[in-house]
Amino acid sequence: MTQSSADPAGLFVSFEGGDGAGKSTQLAILGDWLGETLHREVVRTREPGGTELGRTLRQLVLHGEHVDPRTEALLYATDRAHHVASLVRPALERGAVVLTDRYLDSSLAYQAGGRELGMTELRDLQMWAVGGLIPRMTFLLDLDPVLLPQRITGSLDRLESAGADFHRRTRETFLALAADEPERWRVIDASAPVDAVAAEIRGHLAPVLGVTS
Amino acid sequence: MTQSSADPAGLFVSFEGGDGAGKSTQLAILGDWLGETLHREVVRTREPGGTELGRTLRQLVLHGEHVDPRTEALLYATDRAHHVASLVRPALERGAVVLTDRYLDSSLAYQAGGRELGMTELRDLQMWAVGGLIPRMTFLLDLDPVLLPQRITGSLDRLESAGADFHRRTRETFLALAADEPERWRVIDASAPVDAVAAEIRGHLAPVLGVTS
Repeated sequence: MTQSSADPAGLFVSFEGGDGAGKSTQLAILGDWLGETLHREVVRTREPGGTELGRTLRQLVLHGEHVDPRTEALLYATDRAHHVASLVRPALERGAVVLTDRYLDSSLAYQAGGRELGMTELRDLQMWAVGGLIPRMTFLLDLDPVLLPQRITGSLDRLESAGADFHRRTRETFLALAADEPERWRVIDASAPVDAVAAEIRGHLAPVLGVTS
Repeated sequence: MTQSSADPAGLFVSFEGGDGAGKSTQLAILGDWLGETLHREVVRTREPGGTELGRTLRQLVLHGEHVDPRTEALLYATDRAHHVASLVRPALERGAVVLTDRYLDSSLAYQAGGRELGMTELRDLQMWAVGGLIPRMTFLLDLDPVLLPQRITGSLDRLESAGADFHRRTRETFLALAADEPERWRVIDASAPVDAVAAEIRGHLAPVLGVTS
């Protein structure tokens, strides 16, 4: 898989990893740094739920009635297709740097790794949904599930309540995806202090942007 | 394409054609007749919107924000996957006759015929969504779009407002799909009187059910 030729001007970066690994924190820190360092638009977004339609779909998949694995994969693919067509691709065509909290690798890791659909069929579906658009760089914030912070408030959503075995298989699939495409992925030890993780991420991205980290 | 082997006991029948051709009327008449004739469960359903999740998706696709063709295809595929997994397949496994007002051929006709996605990719997507489940018999209620009844109340939804050229291409695609699989499709002249159309439909289905029409 290579980055789509429909992305000539912008830079597309995704953050992947389990819940609680610090993706949204690191995305915010990186976004602030890029905003101060670059004279360039920076767009911060997320999946699922980066668009209005996506927020409705997110509610359906996380808190709605039980759905089978195919329906779940299609709900995520629908959210992603709309997110790419209405937000990500237009921003890249304007020349923006787009940072997304999760992208299609999450579907592969959670559904092929954690559940029982095949990797090839899932990848074909997700790649069709996004018209082949792949990030230039993907940061895997890797954390042993036993180190995940305990959630002490609120109710667990469907993914969070899926159990330790599910989280372990998901992590293994993320690591396997990263190993398959080392030119795109950067695996980051998310158990390190927040500032150290942020510095490592900047260090990987700075050369691509032609700036100093 | 052949009927899935996961449908050993029931009978799956779909109605296709443009809006206003009489699908829901004919489905109701056939359902009543089957209920009186057979000692067998008859399930009447529809796409999109045959399930609770599907009704939410239907609102999104018909009345929500503008979506691109891939997102639209995925919304319909999501509705269909859930409809099949949660309602159609369980009913067929119970031995029921399932009558659906639209099924995957509608997506092929409206999106490959009326819009710009390729037929092969759309068919692959929809077939994946339903795990290969194809109706035993599909009735195309065929009507020249110039004969469509004028809607005099209410606002037009997105499909209805798409224009005469769109309806003509959709009809042509339905007819081409029927010609490709004559063993599954029965093309019915929907401009005939309601009772005559109903009798013709019964005449096609009675031998399959081992009854007299």
